[in-house]
Amino acid sequence: MPADRLSATFAALADPTRRAILARLAASGEASVMALAAPFEMTLPAVSKHLKVLERAGLIARGREAQWRPCRLDAAPLKDAADWLEHYRRFWEESLARLEDYLRELQTKGPENGRKN
Amino acid sequence: MPADRLSATFAALADPTRRAILARLAASGEASVMALAAPFEMTLPAVSKHLKVLERAGLIARGREAQWRPCRLDAAPLKDAADWLEHYRRFWEESLARLEDYLRELQTKGPENGRKN
Repeated sequence: MPADRLSATFAALADPTRRAILARLAASGEASVMALAAPFEMTLPAVSKHLKVLERAGLIARGREAQWRPCRLDAAPLKDAADWLEHYRRFWEESLARLEDYLRELQTKGPENGRKN
Repeated sequence: MPADRLSATFAALADPTRRAILARLAASGEASVMALAAPFEMTLPAVSKHLKVLERAGLIARGREAQWRPCRLDAAPLKDAADWLEHYRRFWEESLARLEDYLRELQTKGPENGRKN
């Protein structure tokens, strides 16, 4: 289990089921464990395990009601993850620009190598 | 090992050493495994293991030279991670706004409950 919060956030996001749970909570607000489990071909304990990972990472909070304990999204840790990624924006924009240049070069050349339009 | 690319990206980022390696490559461009390992109190095989995780996630590429095999950053997968997080911006901005409202309320009340300035 990663000790630092940013690692815990990224680890929690490294699973498609957990990301789908967050997407669902973002769309619908509060939901019960039963309601969250419904779209997945998964046992309730398996879904509960994913919810625990999300809860430990601070990405969901759970209600205090004894029976129902609804889950809701807590997006605050996602800001730190987005801030970390933002430092690398210039690098992915550069590599996309290089790819575009390359594709443009291919297009200019046309199907026959070196052909001019 | 996560099968989907976005999960592989997030999993690779869920470790402070791996994030430090990416930061180093972003700052200095190409670097050898030896140079990357130097700042960490870690064996060379341990650092190599981290590099393999980053390489499998497509976050670093390695040169073809037989001996030196320099590593360089490939930031393209980080764009998908940032795009995914972007959907949640509204939620973390809302929770920050709520926190600010709460702090402003505390400040208005002052140290004595209900005191007016």
